Amino acid sequence: MGSWDYREIINLVQTEIEQTKYSGYPNELYDPMNYILQLGGKRLRPVTTLLAAQLFSDNLKSAIPAAKALEVFHNFTLVHDDIMDKAPLRRGKETVHEKWNENIAILSGDTLLIEVYNHFLEGEYSNLPDILKVFNKTAVEVCEGQQLDMNFETRNDVSIEEYVNMIRLKTSVLVGGAFKIGALVAQANEEDAELIYDFGMNLGIAFQLQDDYLDCFGDPEKFGKQVGGDIISNKKTFMMLKALEIETSGVLRKWVNLESFDAETKVLEIKAIYKSLKVDNLAFQLMDEFYEKALNSLRLVNASNESKERIIEFAKELMKRSS
Amino acid sequence: MGSWDYREIINLVQTEIEQTKYSGYPNELYDPMNYILQLGGKRLRPVTTLLAAQLFSDNLKSAIPAAKALEVFHNFTLVHDDIMDKAPLRRGKETVHEKWNENIAILSGDTLLIEVYNHFLEGEYSNLPDILKVFNKTAVEVCEGQQLDMNFETRNDVSIEEYVNMIRLKTSVLVGGAFKIGALVAQANEEDAELIYDFGMNLGIAFQLQDDYLDCFGDPEKFGKQVGGDIISNKKTFMMLKALEIETSGVLRKWVNLESFDAETKVLEIKAIYKSLKVDNLAFQLMDEFYEKALNSLRLVNASNESKERIIEFAKELMKRSS
Repeated sequence: MGSWDYREIINLVQTEIEQTKYSGYPNELYDPMNYILQLGGKRLRPVTTLLAAQLFSDNLKSAIPAAKALEVFHNFTLVHDDIMDKAPLRRGKETVHEKWNENIAILSGDTLLIEVYNHFLEGEYSNLPDILKVFNKTAVEVCEGQQLDMNFETRNDVSIEEYVNMIRLKTSVLVGGAFKIGALVAQANEEDAELIYDFGMNLGIAFQLQDDYLDCFGDPEKFGKQVGGDIISNKKTFMMLKALEIETSGVLRKWVNLESFDAETKVLEIKAIYKSLKVDNLAFQLMDEFYEKALNSLRLVNASNESKERIIEFAKELMKRSS
Repeated sequence: MGSWDYREIINLVQTEIEQTKYSGYPNELYDPMNYILQLGGKRLRPVTTLLAAQLFSDNLKSAIPAAKALEVFHNFTLVHDDIMDKAPLRRGKETVHEKWNENIAILSGDTLLIEVYNHFLEGEYSNLPDILKVFNKTAVEVCEGQQLDMNFETRNDVSIEEYVNMIRLKTSVLVGGAFKIGALVAQANEEDAELIYDFGMNLGIAFQLQDDYLDCFGDPEKFGKQVGGDIISNKKTFMMLKALEIETSGVLRKWVNLESFDAETKVLEIKAIYKSLKVDNLAFQLMDEFYEKALNSLRLVNASNESKERIIEFAKELMKRSS
């Protein structure tokens, strides 16, 4: 049996997630769980779990329960984060706390988190304790990242180092963890599992930096979110922090401190400042650094070049890169 | 080595919980976790886990990590339930969402739930998957019970059967699960584990019915909560539902429907109605039925009479019974 390419794996994951339905009483608990899981999305984490499993084993399918567990965990974080961020929309549809209410969102999120562990159990993995240790560490770090993100909203002295650490915890360790768990399911040794974790984590940071860039300069048609949302809300992204660090005119700081403003003008003006200070280029440079760091770890993994190539194809697609 | 009596086990549990401290960054995540865990309480669930382990093994201490896991889970439910119930106080102190804020309460609760699984892992149990299956099933049922409890607040057609099922899910299955997990840790067979589950679950229902009774007729000094709280908030307890079922005068229904009232008068009047309709006696009868059912299951467990006696002593103390 040849190895699967990432497109085939995405299809497999989509089918598996579509078939995942929770049922029980009362409906108020179970309907939101199914709603969020079926809202769609890139299914990035389960795809990475299966790609990693394929590096070390021919039996890709045994990693499916672990892959589902990671997708369900990601959806749990979406439900609870959306409450905390008071977000009305998720993937263009009402968030759970908007469609039902906050209490239901708290409780159905909690139940999703418990179901994560049921999915891991379904896999009947002989090294379940090792897998759960990696998962729990990752899951706690994701909570730390979310708390830091909230703390940063009311702080004016966030450093770039702190920002990168926050996105590492909030989003990238889960990509690293998803890769590592796929490797562990496929019985990879500790060294290779650690290398693939580093690959995933650094790729995750590069991906988040790209997401921040696209929030500013992306094509509104393709991006799927409101372009300029980070600028409007004064989110302390890499570009914002770097620009505040190097600007001498004080114009950016003035925009940030304005209590009332026309949103469109603010976005246009701050984008122009970013361009003139070249922080867009600096963001690209940093993204490249993390992407290269990721590839260097992957190169050291002891696995077939063909299966590594499958992962590089996926990483390129994710980062919209030709090389 | 002789067996431990429940007072010794309570002391052991208190010491173990006092020594359980979570640390990490940022503090906003970890401080609330330690705060709620150190607020005190009866430590009912970990004590039952150790009592159950003692039925089937001399090595009580190997059950400590599982016992901690159950106490941490219980504390997770307190943090999230208090948000949902908008409760200002817990054990006479500020609740987590009052002392910090709602977002911190959601997120530190989530982290407690993940830590539950770390405690189970600490135990290095050879039958970890069996233990986690019981735990996950119980945990999901607790969420179902909380959702039902919230649903009942806005329903006027709750039956007594539905009420008993709700308290079974919300509070009693966790007592049953705590007993069963203690048995599994001590390598009890499936039949005995099921019997001790039934014992714990029925004892839990009896205990909750007693709690409802004490909320009405308890000694304010000893009860530790506002006496009459359930009456003031029209909580659909067994006594309320039974009284509404059998009253012919409509006076109780009038009190329930009153939008504005003097709380003390309402409590006095409704307590008098309960007494005249003898629903306090009926509540005691039902409590007795569940208590006897519990003891019948315990009698069938294949274990030494001495260790069963330890459990009966504990149950009597819990239910404030002399026989």
